Amino acid sequence: MVTEDEAMRRAIALASRGLGTTSPNPVVGCLLLSASGEVVGEGFHVYAGGPHAEIVALAQAGELARGGTCVVSLEPCNHTGRTGPCSEALITAGVRRVVIAVDDPNPVASGGAATMRAAGIEVTTGVRREEAELGNVAWLTAVRRGRPYVTWKFAATLDGRSAAADGTSQWISSAESRADVHVLRSTVDAIVAGVGTVVADDPQLTVRDLRDGTLAIKQPLRVVVDSSGRTPENARVRDAAAPTWIVTAAAAGSGPAGRVDLSRMLTELYARDVRNVLLEGGPTLAGAFLDAGLVDRVIGYIAPKLLGDGRAALIDASIGTIADAVELEFTEITQIGGDLRFTALLRQKESLSMPQQKES
Amino acid sequence: MVTEDEAMRRAIALASRGLGTTSPNPVVGCLLLSASGEVVGEGFHVYAGGPHAEIVALAQAGELARGGTCVVSLEPCNHTGRTGPCSEALITAGVRRVVIAVDDPNPVASGGAATMRAAGIEVTTGVRREEAELGNVAWLTAVRRGRPYVTWKFAATLDGRSAAADGTSQWISSAESRADVHVLRSTVDAIVAGVGTVVADDPQLTVRDLRDGTLAIKQPLRVVVDSSGRTPENARVRDAAAPTWIVTAAAAGSGPAGRVDLSRMLTELYARDVRNVLLEGGPTLAGAFLDAGLVDRVIGYIAPKLLGDGRAALIDASIGTIADAVELEFTEITQIGGDLRFTALLRQKESLSMPQQKES
Repeated sequence: MVTEDEAMRRAIALASRGLGTTSPNPVVGCLLLSASGEVVGEGFHVYAGGPHAEIVALAQAGELARGGTCVVSLEPCNHTGRTGPCSEALITAGVRRVVIAVDDPNPVASGGAATMRAAGIEVTTGVRREEAELGNVAWLTAVRRGRPYVTWKFAATLDGRSAAADGTSQWISSAESRADVHVLRSTVDAIVAGVGTVVADDPQLTVRDLRDGTLAIKQPLRVVVDSSGRTPENARVRDAAAPTWIVTAAAAGSGPAGRVDLSRMLTELYARDVRNVLLEGGPTLAGAFLDAGLVDRVIGYIAPKLLGDGRAALIDASIGTIADAVELEFTEITQIGGDLRFTALLRQKESLSMPQQKES
Repeated sequence: MVTEDEAMRRAIALASRGLGTTSPNPVVGCLLLSASGEVVGEGFHVYAGGPHAEIVALAQAGELARGGTCVVSLEPCNHTGRTGPCSEALITAGVRRVVIAVDDPNPVASGGAATMRAAGIEVTTGVRREEAELGNVAWLTAVRRGRPYVTWKFAATLDGRSAAADGTSQWISSAESRADVHVLRSTVDAIVAGVGTVVADDPQLTVRDLRDGTLAIKQPLRVVVDSSGRTPENARVRDAAAPTWIVTAAAAGSGPAGRVDLSRMLTELYARDVRNVLLEGGPTLAGAFLDAGLVDRVIGYIAPKLLGDGRAALIDASIGTIADAVELEFTEITQIGGDLRFTALLRQKESLSMPQQKES
């Protein structure tokens, strides 16, 4: 027997295993408890087009779901997309009670709770809501804004340098940090870099070397911001290891100084089902994203080194005085190898909670 | 009853309470255990000229010390300075056994263990040595090198800026971090700043606002590195709150480009009984210290902010390529208020352990 609270914790943990492969869908985890409170089924959403978490759990539970409780990290969907509505499946299975962490903010899919209530199912929402929202932060933020969630990742020395005076930067961070970046890449839909970085370092921008030996089941889209089309024909980002989009100002529209309009680029990525973007490489590109208010999260790998000269990790963010500094909040600080890794969220006036009209 | 190991942990903790007031002496803590293993006395060295830790503990224990054990974080001194030799006091008190963490590397004071052994006392050394050395790292390093231990402290944004483009920097770090800096100042003998910082920010460079409400019992010496004598007559560092040394190239000797010879300045500070220096303020001065190999430890207060422009926390350290970066090792990472504070030690080829010939 597990409590509904414990079951929700497990459902949220299951959900996170789908990070990086479910877009444009959210990550969702589900447990089914029998009428006597035993776990009789569990599942998570693995990839768009594949079965939803509830369907996986129901298939496992079979008849044991009847009279039982469904504990699910996101409101069951109410529409027929590539799969049928989960709300109907739960009603058909004879579930007595449904416990939900977060309401679905997606107008196309929401309404599952209301449908189930109308069918006589007892529905509770908001259990471990904050934790579940954090697990789905990229998707929730993306759906709310209509553009992907953007994480800016950088590596620097203690004094904020991402390269030495002569341009050398390999390796500022430790082997452990570099392996961690591959894990991070495996959780996103697209990796964005500036053409300057592509020309200087010729990175491949793929997911490799995952520490647990697993292969990435899906390579993120590689996006090169390349206003004037300077990406070399033989650049590694053009290889066959992953799809690539070279974004020129001509193709995506230009913003200030003829550079790619980043906001329009993100909208286009959203239209291509990208919900979660990792911005890597290029202090100028990072500055342009920040200046445009397009960064949601920053992850920094800080190596215990000092340079005192060389390329700054961030430039050209149009901030002139300390009062205008971009303010963040640390959510995690840890050590990776000999380095320090921090995660910080940009302070927003908006909250993560969903608009109220979606409750019904 | 406490074990000798527990007693040593307590002795080391007691010792640390003397940080900032014992120089040129080390910090020392001591416990006296009776023949039956009860704590019958304890003490720590509070200030140079005052009683040593062993004497404080012996005075408390009285006759109960006879046949007992002395647990002390540093080898008892063997010489008559402003106070008599502790080795003799322990022999006279009839102590049966002495447990020492660290041998005294100071040739003038060492030899206490040998003297006590010759008098028939059982002497053990090396108990919690590493921990005790860390507690005395400034003094031990200073004695070995003949120059004070130097901690460079700075505050910066996530991208390594210590001021915005317009020069504003108040406040980059949080109120909690600024209070923490006063605690840090209270543990050193001197605070060093460059004249540029004095002219720009007019800091007082004193210990204030200690969180526990105590007053600093001793203000550190304020040292202004001021090659050409530009410190304003009405600068706050010249006020009566603490002693001040304005170091000009004319007075202290000049190094490269007519600037103050920092190595000679530190030797002069050592001669003035300074063992522990806090280097604050001035990215150029920090660069000069690092370039000269005169920094032992770095403490950084990193505010969760981004600027993308403005003054770098460190410049002019004469490092041109990544392979020549100054390498450090994190020893502590914590959160202070909303900020991150790290402590990192410079990787040295020398070890902290003392020369072997001092063992005898």
